[in-house]
Amino acid sequence: MAAHYLRFQAEGTVRYGVLQGDTVAELAGNFLDTTERTGATYALADVELLTPTVPTKVMCIGLNYKLHAEERGKKIPEEPMLFLKPPSAVVATGQEIVLPAIAQDVEYEGELAVIIGKRAKFLTVEEARDAIFGITVLNDVSERFYQVKDGQWGRAKGFDTFAPVGPFVATGLDYQNLKIETKINGEVKQSSSTSDMIFTVDHLVSFVSQVMTLEPGDILTTGTPAGVGPLQGGDVCEITIEGVGTLVNRVRDLRK
Amino acid sequence: MAAHYLRFQAEGTVRYGVLQGDTVAELAGNFLDTTERTGATYALADVELLTPTVPTKVMCIGLNYKLHAEERGKKIPEEPMLFLKPPSAVVATGQEIVLPAIAQDVEYEGELAVIIGKRAKFLTVEEARDAIFGITVLNDVSERFYQVKDGQWGRAKGFDTFAPVGPFVATGLDYQNLKIETKINGEVKQSSSTSDMIFTVDHLVSFVSQVMTLEPGDILTTGTPAGVGPLQGGDVCEITIEGVGTLVNRVRDLRK
Repeated sequence: MAAHYLRFQAEGTVRYGVLQGDTVAELAGNFLDTTERTGATYALADVELLTPTVPTKVMCIGLNYKLHAEERGKKIPEEPMLFLKPPSAVVATGQEIVLPAIAQDVEYEGELAVIIGKRAKFLTVEEARDAIFGITVLNDVSERFYQVKDGQWGRAKGFDTFAPVGPFVATGLDYQNLKIETKINGEVKQSSSTSDMIFTVDHLVSFVSQVMTLEPGDILTTGTPAGVGPLQGGDVCEITIEGVGTLVNRVRDLRK
Repeated sequence: MAAHYLRFQAEGTVRYGVLQGDTVAELAGNFLDTTERTGATYALADVELLTPTVPTKVMCIGLNYKLHAEERGKKIPEEPMLFLKPPSAVVATGQEIVLPAIAQDVEYEGELAVIIGKRAKFLTVEEARDAIFGITVLNDVSERFYQVKDGQWGRAKGFDTFAPVGPFVATGLDYQNLKIETKINGEVKQSSSTSDMIFTVDHLVSFVSQVMTLEPGDILTTGTPAGVGPLQGGDVCEITIEGVGTLVNRVRDLRK
């Protein structure tokens, strides 16, 4: 059965919880470690949602949906293409995506992201599932001018606030068969299914684990479907994955 | 006056210290926060050297020495090229560089690295100096086959053990005028000066701070001079920066 975990702040303290409808049941510790409940509950509407984890690294995959590879004018990759975003880019649902003064052309990329549950290395595809705690939503915000100019994507995809993630970590879902949809100001811009991924989630986790040790709370985001487009100051970007939740971020433009 | 700080393990506990010749004077806490001494001392030869910090991110610059850009067949960049290595790649002096089973062509890259001293954003070049706690040595170990194949360098430069760093963090040096030398099995392979950098250390810190918030203990490595070459199983790689120290790592080859 599906469950939805979250990290939140209430009464000035960082807490962990599990959703029960519109109520948050507080957990005795990080949901990666325990499902024990404290007995305390909070109204979801009253808590401040935080990023689900504080990752040691944010691993990203380029071009993992065929139609997005085509819209970017790229070939379907033979193997996953791995890059990193810095933890300093991670923000929660409800926080702003800030377009920096030096940015020219910033776009959203709605993605399904994996939350790693345990330290792991050299996983087979079959073993990968066991290292995945759950899934969440991530926006791989990207500055296209620097993405092309620099070659490496450290700047284009590494600006502060360029990795919104959350709100919930869902477990118990068939993560290879979920609708994923991005809306800008209520208008649908990306609409696809995670069944359209080129490399499956399990394959990606196995692939990355051949390279780097995965740590609990680490995030692996799995590429965006077709339909990417610009973010402007004042835009509200909503990314929904079926059964997981909706990541909502307003855009602030420092260029004005 | 120059000082040399370190993080080490002794009597089963992680500790911080400052060098006094061959003796380590223990500090009351992280050298980023305090210079207060506990009064305890250890023989340098008796302690286990750890990575100088546990960074939230390792920021790297490509092609920052003219002759290295030429040997890689690349143009001199107009702006610094920023990429990231994962914290999972960081190892200390004395630890092994492990060539993974799937690697084909792994090379050393001796570099001067900056240790960030305080949280900072949007620094001018003049302000950058104030955010730098000190400098150390880093080996930007790189797998050339995947570096070319993948385009993005997340895999090629992100393998576990591909970011040896240390042994000491030196303060009080003119970091733009230091000899930097890499030896493999005692033979000099890279020999240059940090005066040959295309972009100065202060410029790079300012540049990166326009993109991402710098955190205490974060590492920014500043590119490698000419003379890069292969690492083989059993090789001993020694990288020395004048006045800073020597980073020593033996290579283990998992392919055999």
